[in-house]
Amino acid sequence: MEVPLLVSDFINRAVKLYGPSEAVADGDERWTYAEFGARANQLGHGLAALGVGKGDRVGILSPNSHHFLEAFYGVASIGAVIVPMNYRLIADDFDYIINHVGAKVMLVDSDYTAVIDDLRPKLPTVEHFVVARFADAPLTDGWRDWEDLIAGRPATAPPDPGLEENDLYSINYTSGTTARPKGVMLTHRNIYLNAYNFLVHSRISNEDVEMWTLPMFHANGWGGPFALTAVGARHVVLRKVDPQAIYRLLQDEDITFACMAPAVLAAILDYPDRGQYNVTTKPRFVVAGAPPPLRFIERLETELGWEFVQGYGLTETSPLLTLAEVKPYIGVDDDGARRIKVRAGHDIIGVQVRVVDADGNDVPADDEAIGEVIARSNVVFKGYWEQPEETAKVIVDGWFHTGDLATVDGHGYINLVDRAKDMIITGGENVSSIEVEDVLYGHPAVLEAAVIGVPSERWGETPLAVVVLREGAAATAEEIIAHCRDNMAHFKAPSRVEFVAALPRTATGKLKKFELRETHWQETGASGRRIN
Amino acid sequence: MEVPLLVSDFINRAVKLYGPSEAVADGDERWTYAEFGARANQLGHGLAALGVGKGDRVGILSPNSHHFLEAFYGVASIGAVIVPMNYRLIADDFDYIINHVGAKVMLVDSDYTAVIDDLRPKLPTVEHFVVARFADAPLTDGWRDWEDLIAGRPATAPPDPGLEENDLYSINYTSGTTARPKGVMLTHRNIYLNAYNFLVHSRISNEDVEMWTLPMFHANGWGGPFALTAVGARHVVLRKVDPQAIYRLLQDEDITFACMAPAVLAAILDYPDRGQYNVTTKPRFVVAGAPPPLRFIERLETELGWEFVQGYGLTETSPLLTLAEVKPYIGVDDDGARRIKVRAGHDIIGVQVRVVDADGNDVPADDEAIGEVIARSNVVFKGYWEQPEETAKVIVDGWFHTGDLATVDGHGYINLVDRAKDMIITGGENVSSIEVEDVLYGHPAVLEAAVIGVPSERWGETPLAVVVLREGAAATAEEIIAHCRDNMAHFKAPSRVEFVAALPRTATGKLKKFELRETHWQETGASGRRIN
Repeated sequence: MEVPLLVSDFINRAVKLYGPSEAVADGDERWTYAEFGARANQLGHGLAALGVGKGDRVGILSPNSHHFLEAFYGVASIGAVIVPMNYRLIADDFDYIINHVGAKVMLVDSDYTAVIDDLRPKLPTVEHFVVARFADAPLTDGWRDWEDLIAGRPATAPPDPGLEENDLYSINYTSGTTARPKGVMLTHRNIYLNAYNFLVHSRISNEDVEMWTLPMFHANGWGGPFALTAVGARHVVLRKVDPQAIYRLLQDEDITFACMAPAVLAAILDYPDRGQYNVTTKPRFVVAGAPPPLRFIERLETELGWEFVQGYGLTETSPLLTLAEVKPYIGVDDDGARRIKVRAGHDIIGVQVRVVDADGNDVPADDEAIGEVIARSNVVFKGYWEQPEETAKVIVDGWFHTGDLATVDGHGYINLVDRAKDMIITGGENVSSIEVEDVLYGHPAVLEAAVIGVPSERWGETPLAVVVLREGAAATAEEIIAHCRDNMAHFKAPSRVEFVAALPRTATGKLKKFELRETHWQETGASGRRIN
Repeated sequence: MEVPLLVSDFINRAVKLYGPSEAVADGDERWTYAEFGARANQLGHGLAALGVGKGDRVGILSPNSHHFLEAFYGVASIGAVIVPMNYRLIADDFDYIINHVGAKVMLVDSDYTAVIDDLRPKLPTVEHFVVARFADAPLTDGWRDWEDLIAGRPATAPPDPGLEENDLYSINYTSGTTARPKGVMLTHRNIYLNAYNFLVHSRISNEDVEMWTLPMFHANGWGGPFALTAVGARHVVLRKVDPQAIYRLLQDEDITFACMAPAVLAAILDYPDRGQYNVTTKPRFVVAGAPPPLRFIERLETELGWEFVQGYGLTETSPLLTLAEVKPYIGVDDDGARRIKVRAGHDIIGVQVRVVDADGNDVPADDEAIGEVIARSNVVFKGYWEQPEETAKVIVDGWFHTGDLATVDGHGYINLVDRAKDMIITGGENVSSIEVEDVLYGHPAVLEAAVIGVPSERWGETPLAVVVLREGAAATAEEIIAHCRDNMAHFKAPSRVEFVAALPRTATGKLKKFELRETHWQETGASGRRIN
């Protein structure tokens, strides 16, 4: 028997078997799975009443909230396609995305109605604007209240839209560090199999409680809305990342699991008042987005006694591709385990990851040779929305080309060394900007660091370190260069250091190196080959 | 991107990422995943050299062995279909199955070559007979040695057979308590999604070690060969169920996981010398096949400190349908948890289970109303091999009808009360034979019990208890009937008791009640409506 793999399976199972169990906590409010499922269905009925049908796009612009979780299932319940948007983008981006995807309805948190109101004349496809009002925000002109939309609608599922598993579930626009965002089309099958991998490899059970440190818009919360729901686990919403709120939830909500970017982990580790909280659950933190320094892991494990797991993936891969699971046969001690956990990991089930050279051959597994990460899997996306030419650039002969550069070690663990475009070539040698940044983070005065290649008459490019110093700390450029030279090959060490107050980051916490590079390549009048 | 869900994914991942890790222990021999994968591929090449190709059927008749595990992947590596046979069947059954499925090659353990030799003239489809020689058994006429067949063959995968995920992986003949065995066609997709559920719900990780108490032929070891392999966990082969061997393996091989029938669990619990072994792993035992008495679970948990999980499924469902996971929201104590664990459980991910009355309506969730268990899922089989009329009887309107009768409680847990044909109807009341057996097991002198309906002029049928007494124990029929009447409604209590030395069981440990019934219905000359 073949039954389509549809995301609705997860909420249907939870409603049937975990109906009275708490599903979502958002501030002081609580919803059981029966209520969560009912509200999702009511949203589906409400959207259908607005004329939304199978294949129509419904945008959502919201911080983490119970409404967002409900939308993940409500939009799909009528076969429509959810388009989660990054709330840290600017008006121009929203204009582009909403028109590019042709959203018929916009679901918007009250914090973001103003930016959408300014764009209204430019959004001809949007027929209805629905607001989820946070903290009793007033209902403003032109907005339909989410609660009014769903009030009185049936709690049961809308009529079966007849979805197939390769139909679209979502279109997620990539954060776009360099170009216009592209719409990543993910199917129900993509999402379903990513959820299985999330469950298996993160060992999620009905006893888990996820704290939503990760923005839900970001690759659909990496699959958490599906994996946790499938087993009747609990979602604890965090609207805004704030260390105090995180510690309060860790203590009061019995959090066992969270996903986050390294910057959030750093904020948790550095929170000065953490000793005031009594966390008894030994939560597991899955970190991805950029490799964290080894000492982050060590501090998490030794100072807090919590569990660290690193993963790697892209929006285009649903997103999970690899996890840094420690293999028992290697027989490493705690320190050795941490040296594995700092890596991006290795292929999870149903994912084939390779690191290949320019000719498409696997690079040697020597942890030295650098190649591009490519992947073949059911978690790889269907393509970019209405950009088949962009899809054809990255899916070649059945393999998705990630644009990320990595090495592989003898145990098959990959180590991301850079985005292809962030690699520095100096005197003919490849230098990973991340490797230099790791050394910089080892200097006690360095809070944050970014390394880029800048023009050099002698070497073509030379590494430049852009550094944010810790509050109250001091260091000269010479001291920092000397520190690097003591800890790595001289050609890799930066030849210049610039001190800045903060580094430019994308909405998902990635360094916007192109901004740093832009400045320096423009200064010199060089061609700026990396700016694309 | 859509990639076929193929069983080969599991071994390929293990070979790539767990190559040096021990995969299989069988007696004193050990194979790494690199070796396991190589031997599976060599078998594929060897079978191809014998003319086996995509879609051809390859029978295997073997107790648990490393060869069997290799065959699970080797046969599939060339797109052929494995047909695991129950070694407890008789020659007449083998004759029927081998001819019905049209096996081209038979892979046979040396313990079973004699029975096949006797059948040779009757097996026209079988072109090659391959023997896996146990303990240096001699090579006899007409047999090709497994090791010779694979020697010198490439360790790499045979040419891609171009399988689709809905192509057949295996044909498993059901044990056939009543009729000729039927060939259950399972696809790669069936097996793959069952493996995911096995991993998620049994929480299998790379640290697990499965002891093969379950026969591998039985529904492909419930999916263990795929789930454990997918994450690089370890298989420890047990050729023959023997409590002493089990305790030795538990102690020496750091077993963490095993699947078994209740009879095996009973043997483990009752092993008198168990105090001589030091088991430090707190293994998890998944039990299915028949509901075990509550006290089995209690003893396992309290006397041994091990973990018990009950499941339910059929060969036709790959096999897992339900597991008795305790839901935290119910808030039960240890005893309450055991009362849940004694049930068959509730729907695992991607499985919809319903209990319906004769009109197809869900029975009330009151743990009283009895209906038939039906299931809709990707783990439901493709159909019976060359018996579309039998398939049409059990897959109706997209639901598989299991023939098992159950009740459902308010939390959605089902409780199997009987096979449809084992239910006793006395004076118009339904009596579950299993319920009566549970009460009988509560009598200190009863080792085993089976309850059947026998003709009664007054009641139509009346319950008869067939009892095996414990060694050295004594009880009269009157005492046993009194015990039942003290513990259940009088109309359910047996009116007669027969004492026997042993109960007839199928190869998979199920009671062959039809044999018991046959005797009594023939005695009376009644029509024997249950014998089908």
